[in-house]
Amino acid sequence: MALFHVRMDVDIPRDLDPDLRAETLAREKEYSQELQRQGKWPEIWRIVGKYSNISIFDVESADELHEILFGLPLFPFMNIEVTALTRHGSDIKE
Amino acid sequence: MALFHVRMDVDIPRDLDPDLRAETLAREKEYSQELQRQGKWPEIWRIVGKYSNISIFDVESADELHEILFGLPLFPFMNIEVTALTRHGSDIKE
Amino acid sequence: MALFHVRMDVDIPRDLDPDLRAETLAREKEYSQELQRQGKWPEIWRIVGKYSNISIFDVESADELHEILFGLPLFPFMNIEVTALTRHGSDIKE
Amino acid sequence: MALFHVRMDVDIPRDLDPDLRAETLAREKEYSQELQRQGKWPEIWRIVGKYSNISIFDVESADELHEILFGLPLFPFMNIEVTALTRHGSDIKE
Amino acid sequence: MALFHVRMDVDIPRDLDPDLRAETLAREKEYSQELQRQGKWPEIWRIVGKYSNISIFDVESADELHEILFGLPLFPFMNIEVTALTRHGSDIKE
Amino acid sequence: MALFHVRMDVDIPRDLDPDLRAETLAREKEYSQELQRQGKWPEIWRIVGKYSNISIFDVESADELHEILFGLPLFPFMNIEVTALTRHGSDIKE
Amino acid sequence: MALFHVRMDVDIPRDLDPDLRAETLAREKEYSQELQRQGKWPEIWRIVGKYSNISIFDVESADELHEILFGLPLFPFMNIEVTALTRHGSDIKE
Amino acid sequence: MALFHVRMDVDIPRDLDPDLRAETLAREKEYSQELQRQGKWPEIWRIVGKYSNISIFDVESADELHEILFGLPLFPFMNIEVTALTRHGSDIKE
Amino acid sequence: MALFHVRMDVDIPRDLDPDLRAETLAREKEYSQELQRQGKWPEIWRIVGKYSNISIFDVESADELHEILFGLPLFPFMNIEVTALTRHGSDIKE
Amino acid sequence: MALFHVRMDVDIPRDLDPDLRAETLAREKEYSQELQRQGKWPEIWRIVGKYSNISIFDVESADELHEILFGLPLFPFMNIEVTALTRHGSDIKE
Repeated sequence: MALFHVRMDVDIPRDLDPDLRAETLAREKEYSQELQRQGKWPEIWRIVGKYSNISIFDVESADELHEILFGLPLFPFMNIEVTALTRHGSDIKE
Repeated sequence: MALFHVRMDVDIPRDLDPDLRAETLAREKEYSQELQRQGKWPEIWRIVGKYSNISIFDVESADELHEILFGLPLFPFMNIEVTALTRHGSDIKE
Repeated sequence: MALFHVRMDVDIPRDLDPDLRAETLAREKEYSQELQRQGKWPEIWRIVGKYSNISIFDVESADELHEILFGLPLFPFMNIEVTALTRHGSDIKE
Repeated sequence: MALFHVRMDVDIPRDLDPDLRAETLAREKEYSQELQRQGKWPEIWRIVGKYSNISIFDVESADELHEILFGLPLFPFMNIEVTALTRHGSDIKE
Repeated sequence: MALFHVRMDVDIPRDLDPDLRAETLAREKEYSQELQRQGKWPEIWRIVGKYSNISIFDVESADELHEILFGLPLFPFMNIEVTALTRHGSDIKE
Repeated sequence: MALFHVRMDVDIPRDLDPDLRAETLAREKEYSQELQRQGKWPEIWRIVGKYSNISIFDVESADELHEILFGLPLFPFMNIEVTALTRHGSDIKE
Repeated sequence: MALFHVRMDVDIPRDLDPDLRAETLAREKEYSQELQRQGKWPEIWRIVGKYSNISIFDVESADELHEILFGLPLFPFMNIEVTALTRHGSDIKE
Repeated sequence: MALFHVRMDVDIPRDLDPDLRAETLAREKEYSQELQRQGKWPEIWRIVGKYSNISIFDVESADELHEILFGLPLFPFMNIEVTALTRHGSDIKE
Repeated sequence: MALFHVRMDVDIPRDLDPDLRAETLAREKEYSQELQRQGKWPEIWRIVGKYSNISIFDVESADELHEILFGLPLFPFMNIEVTALTRHGSDIKE
Repeated sequence: MALFHVRMDVDIPRDLDPDLRAETLAREKEYSQELQRQGKWPEIWRIVGKYSNISIFDVESADELHEILFGLPLFPFMNIEVTALTRHGSDIKE
């Protein structure tokens, strides 16, 4: 398994059709929650004051992570930064 | 409760006394693990390729977080960046 | 209670409908002043030469701060940077 | 009167004589508190996780501010950023 | 009196109505020259190769400077950076 | 398998003992070449004009990559940036 | 021969005609694959989470590289960074 | 004649011999004042809160400016940024 | 004479009228070549992979350089950075 | 042939032995001038106000450039940035 830290900054264009916007946001939520239920997206937090999230992904590989991120309904409107993580020597979780 | 994302980049001076270095690292580990056991430092990951960690703190307040961070044995040798988090609307955890 | 330093940089699109713009600015002012009266937004200053402010928020939690900031009528047109504060050891205010 | 936002990042050299260090920190505290009592340094906050403060100065002029900052016992060990402030149009304080 | 160093970078949108553009530029020049005649804007230079200026303002206060800058006809199309100045110890002007 | 792009910028302190320096460089070379022979470090290039390399690693996981990088004899004297890669849709290699 | 490391960040305007977009992407793929077959573009990887690639070019000269890059169908929609590479002293490939 | 905007940020090493430091500062002041009297260094201001100055030089050429700057007694301890200026079209000085 | 290093990054808006675009580019080329023939613009290179050039100007003064740069047909679509040069002590050209 | 734009920023440590410093500078000059005479280093300029140069190299390949730069006596004390150049379409030199 591979653990990644992902920051997503969202910037939806002001002139996006409101229905398309609403539908995209609904699909994004559904997509995220399905991956959370599968355990592949175990953590998602909002950064205070920003239309941004910090997430942890727990996936088979970087290839799978890329498939997931490219599939995000909001992908065209996001800047995404990926950081590879590994176990910390002080972590008490085995 | 208050949730914070904290990144710590460690830079121990090369000329630090080896015994002091070893002792400081041992105290840092003990300090971190005690806070993990208390549930205040629920996550700590190593950034791949760096002497850095990304951590999540779950504390009473920013004041408590500052006390914790100032008390880190490695504090004089770290750059620390704190980001306040809040619940994300898509998070399936209630 | 939790204290935050917030910088807001405003960039209203040139093509925003003038009535919508005026109404948004009026709502922003009312919103800010109501929070000032409640004591949650105790300080707001203009940065000289910029359409920006630096503010201090005194709220229950980062969660409450996020609710407040997301609710700002100008939120879609601002970049916001949040910094968590704590008491300084030299502060003479008890 | 002139209002300034000042951020100070402290970096005391590791090899500073411990007595000199302690004495400098004591003088810094006394110096800051005297200016707070005079009303010239009305606010000082610690940035969470950093050896830094954000302060508000309320002085006669930028000249007076510079005299104050140059006189800080820790001045040689600080990076200081000054931002001129003015009253915000939404501020409810007259 | 208060002395400020101000850099203004101008970026007029390409689709601004040509008459409005010409009129705005004319008003900007008139506005600047009136302040120069009053002694409040004693220096203005062009940065070579840029649609930018570096100016010195000599005003009563930062508040007055902000009023002046907000009133610039080109204000909506400029990025402005303000730096507070004070007398240099080597300056031979008394 | 997991593919990573790694940039290493080397900065050996001037006062490192010359013998230790030579020995460290020799061990670094041996360590790198052993991993190249194992196929885990398939590419290493020098950046023209810099004491830096750009490398490709082909490893089991980010965890293994971290073990490798932490084990580099020059690790204490390098800044390392890791970027996760995946297959490009236009790549003709199957 | 000359070896170059090239990073391309793609940003296709949202309002590009969908047919033109599809045709441009198809031509880009064909163009890239022809150069891969010629051995001039031996490596192309996707950066995880980004509409970006990192590529290695193996060409006669920087002049040839520029011709290739200027000819990319997506060139008007890309930011490109070129880094000259040379053989690393630890490389086991002769 | 040629007009230049020069920013100098001073960083004198802590371990400089105190007598050498005092003598260097005295020579710097004398050097600066002689050039001010010659009209080549017409303006020098202190940046509030910093050991930095912003100066205007009015010299024969960039070559002369370089000679002047290289000759500064504090040159080894300064970072210097030079910006070429020209007359602004709104300047009322002929 | 005065020597300047100038970098120009071109960004022509996608919606510029194609005829105007072609005509502007033709005028730019003619303008540049006339100045090259006069010896004022002795060097112009393309940066590999970018719609940018690095040029050397050999002019009477910074004022003349500014006139030249402001007159560039592509000026509204370029970011320009100017660096003043002087003779290097190791240059073998007298 | 291959053309490169190279910027070198020099930072010689203050505690370098004065004789070694003088000898290194003398060797640097000789080394540079020999390459100028060979036509490989056709241009070298000083940046006004900085201990930096901008140079043009005209070499067989990036490999040769790297050999040259690594061989600079001041290499350990310089930061070097290399930019690959190619002929500009407006250049009147054939």
